[in-house]
Amino acid sequence: MNPREKKTVAYHEAGHALVAELMPGADPVSKISIIPRGVAALGYTQQLPTEDRYLMTRSELLARIYVLLGGRVAEEMIFGDVSTGAQNDLQKATEIARTMITQFGMSERLGLVALEGPRPPMFLPVPTQAPRDYSEETARIVDEEIKKLLVECHNRVRDVLMSSDKRLKSRRNCF
Amino acid sequence: MNPREKKTVAYHEAGHALVAELMPGADPVSKISIIPRGVAALGYTQQLPTEDRYLMTRSELLARIYVLLGGRVAEEMIFGDVSTGAQNDLQKATEIARTMITQFGMSERLGLVALEGPRPPMFLPVPTQAPRDYSEETARIVDEEIKKLLVECHNRVRDVLMSSDKRLKSRRNCF
Amino acid sequence: MNPREKKTVAYHEAGHALVAELMPGADPVSKISIIPRGVAALGYTQQLPTEDRYLMTRSELLARIYVLLGGRVAEEMIFGDVSTGAQNDLQKATEIARTMITQFGMSERLGLVALEGPRPPMFLPVPTQAPRDYSEETARIVDEEIKKLLVECHNRVRDVLMSSDKRLKSRRNCF
Amino acid sequence: MNPREKKTVAYHEAGHALVAELMPGADPVSKISIIPRGVAALGYTQQLPTEDRYLMTRSELLARIYVLLGGRVAEEMIFGDVSTGAQNDLQKATEIARTMITQFGMSERLGLVALEGPRPPMFLPVPTQAPRDYSEETARIVDEEIKKLLVECHNRVRDVLMSSDKRLKSRRNCF
Amino acid sequence: MNPREKKTVAYHEAGHALVAELMPGADPVSKISIIPRGVAALGYTQQLPTEDRYLMTRSELLARIYVLLGGRVAEEMIFGDVSTGAQNDLQKATEIARTMITQFGMSERLGLVALEGPRPPMFLPVPTQAPRDYSEETARIVDEEIKKLLVECHNRVRDVLMSSDKRLKSRRNCF
Amino acid sequence: MNPREKKTVAYHEAGHALVAELMPGADPVSKISIIPRGVAALGYTQQLPTEDRYLMTRSELLARIYVLLGGRVAEEMIFGDVSTGAQNDLQKATEIARTMITQFGMSERLGLVALEGPRPPMFLPVPTQAPRDYSEETARIVDEEIKKLLVECHNRVRDVLMSSDKRLKSRRNCF
Repeated sequence: MNPREKKTVAYHEAGHALVAELMPGADPVSKISIIPRGVAALGYTQQLPTEDRYLMTRSELLARIYVLLGGRVAEEMIFGDVSTGAQNDLQKATEIARTMITQFGMSERLGLVALEGPRPPMFLPVPTQAPRDYSEETARIVDEEIKKLLVECHNRVRDVLMSSDKRLKSRRNCF
Repeated sequence: MNPREKKTVAYHEAGHALVAELMPGADPVSKISIIPRGVAALGYTQQLPTEDRYLMTRSELLARIYVLLGGRVAEEMIFGDVSTGAQNDLQKATEIARTMITQFGMSERLGLVALEGPRPPMFLPVPTQAPRDYSEETARIVDEEIKKLLVECHNRVRDVLMSSDKRLKSRRNCF
Repeated sequence: MNPREKKTVAYHEAGHALVAELMPGADPVSKISIIPRGVAALGYTQQLPTEDRYLMTRSELLARIYVLLGGRVAEEMIFGDVSTGAQNDLQKATEIARTMITQFGMSERLGLVALEGPRPPMFLPVPTQAPRDYSEETARIVDEEIKKLLVECHNRVRDVLMSSDKRLKSRRNCF
Repeated sequence: MNPREKKTVAYHEAGHALVAELMPGADPVSKISIIPRGVAALGYTQQLPTEDRYLMTRSELLARIYVLLGGRVAEEMIFGDVSTGAQNDLQKATEIARTMITQFGMSERLGLVALEGPRPPMFLPVPTQAPRDYSEETARIVDEEIKKLLVECHNRVRDVLMSSDKRLKSRRNCF
Repeated sequence: MNPREKKTVAYHEAGHALVAELMPGADPVSKISIIPRGVAALGYTQQLPTEDRYLMTRSELLARIYVLLGGRVAEEMIFGDVSTGAQNDLQKATEIARTMITQFGMSERLGLVALEGPRPPMFLPVPTQAPRDYSEETARIVDEEIKKLLVECHNRVRDVLMSSDKRLKSRRNCF
Repeated sequence: MNPREKKTVAYHEAGHALVAELMPGADPVSKISIIPRGVAALGYTQQLPTEDRYLMTRSELLARIYVLLGGRVAEEMIFGDVSTGAQNDLQKATEIARTMITQFGMSERLGLVALEGPRPPMFLPVPTQAPRDYSEETARIVDEEIKKLLVECHNRVRDVLMSSDKRLKSRRNCF
């Protein structure tokens, strides 16, 4: 990795970690690394699950999305440019949003309905390929709901990191 | 399971049971448990079918949906947040609603038509994958009818549990 | 079968039989039974084909649909609720309507066109799965024509059974 | 076959034959039969191709459609009801119309374009199942062009048989 | 082949050859034949490629379409009727038009985009069956662009053959 | 290759190279060749990656598209006609644009969403064939975003080569 890439990875992982610390309901961070493990993982932020989980609430699922988007938002804020490094995070975040809307009945607009059946274990890096059991119109609303949810999460994360940044800056000014 | 999860499961199962007791036409409850059996079933509410059934009426199918939605509605009422625990219930409820509309001719808007053929045994946790024999426009109406039916059931269940809650509270006041 | 189910089956089969008797062009009834044969057939109404048939006219196909819908309409009239017992009848009726419209050129709106090719023997309980050789717009019109045809048949059967019911009642009064 | 069916077949085949005689460009009739050959062919009208053909003009293809529709139109005129007997004729007529429009560039509205590739030998009783290489909008126009062509042919055949009928009747009056 | 067919083939091939001679950029004609080779090729017009080609310009691709349409336009002009003989020409012309638009970025409306990947060798008589990687709306625009291109080519060829015909006629008058 | 083809290839490769030199962020050119290697590669422009890359920023991905389009734009400018030679460049450019929009969350209109999963190694000359996990409406927006991005890149490249051309010409005038 060249210095610019290393810097990008560092800010990206710090973004994840900061959001994990600042967002209520997110699992605490146990470790951050920017030592690459293979081509796929240039760095990682490890969260400490304090216990095994059987149920996830809506708020907890949102907290996962917040942390996932934290890396990308940090890149936006620091470099004014974005990289391909968020690809995997975006996939996971989209998958959680999709599952909330199509399987857990967590979209008010679509209601208490299960549009899709059980899938391979959550957070696998594969998109589902099952043929749709609903209409094109419903698929359009699902897409809109996924986008709306992710846009709200994106804005929320940006706000949190922005205000955190100000506080950091002011503290830095103190030194 | 952590205490919060246990509490969620307890209220969820109680929701099923209460609706089964309060809704006319639903099978009586024989057993409730919040001792997990594997990862998939964190708790269960057993209803006692008083006899083998060969025919189900529209009212009886609706009663099944009411009981299925009871768990989720209880979570909404008690926690103001919802969990992933209703996933299986929503699938079953959606499947019943879909079958009523596409196979049993129970949607006035679509009329006495069989849009889909026989399927694997009802209440299997797999969505059907057969290619559609009808137009996108009809698929859209099917989706609307499923949503409408489930929204009505959701409201009905909420009303029943709400008024039951009041009565429970007032009785509790008496103690 | 519990008594309610038996009663439902009895009225259902009587509905088939009455329509077969009252509708001109329908084959005469030779036998009615409400002794179940397996889970699938809880009762049956046997019509006597007076001869082997090679050609069916439009009127004769309509007569078949009338008889098929008779069971369900009887349930509607007697119980004010409907059961899953009409599932197979609805499939057959839909299949006949579909074939009239897409293969026999019997829809004025679609005209003298064969939208679908030959299929497995008529009245099989499987819907066809062949990929469509026509546009979504034409599929929409096919669905509308099927619905229109079945709604007209439904109304016709209801009218016939209603007026028959009145005559039966008045005769009963005479006894 | 019962007498009614025999009569239907006789008029149906006579319809084919009359159109073949009356339409310029149609191959002359060599034989008519209403002795069934298997279940599929209850009768047939044999046209004598005076020679092997390598090319067909637009007019000759139309003449084939006219003859194919003649049987059904005869049923309409004589019985005021139609039968399933035209199923195979409609398939062939639709297939010719479709090929003219999608392969031979004979639709002015769609222009000199080949929307579909070569198929199994023309006039086979199987509809094509190849995935579409064009848009839904084009598929809609193809359907409209097929319908328009067949409606025009239907009207033309009806006119020819109607006026022939008048002449026949007046001649009969002379006897 | 009957005399009419032979005459059709002769004019059809002459149409190809004339366009090849009259259109700038088209390869020169080396041989014309109306002796059939199998059922598929009733005649042929051989153009002499003066060299192997690795690149084709937009103008050269258009010239190929012009020559391909020449046979059909000749039929239109001479007989006022068209035959099935242009089927293969239309397929090739459509395939070239489609490739120009979806692979070579030669449609201004769609822009510098590759909507489809590499295919089997150009000018094969098989349409591509690969699943679409773009939306229905884009497919609609592709169809419109193909039609527009072919209509323009059709008009251009008609103009060229028409004015050539006048010159031929006036020369004939001189004899 | 004939002289015209050679000239086309030379200008095409020079177009790639010039853009690579003129665009900030593009990898420097190490070698240009117009000696064909097989039928597929009539010439090539080799860029020197100064280091292995693990992350690509948005600007770097755009720079790749600019260089890819440079060959085609050179053809437009020099010959006023375009050739099939850009086919492979357009595929790669489209694939990069598509990936930016559907996997890297680099389209503001679609937002921070992963519409498609991981694919075979980037820049492979095969379009993806995976079934879509989103609605037709979203597919339409994806197509519009891809087109918009490529049109902007096309314009940018044209501007850069145009102004470079002027400078070249003025320098040439100096000789």
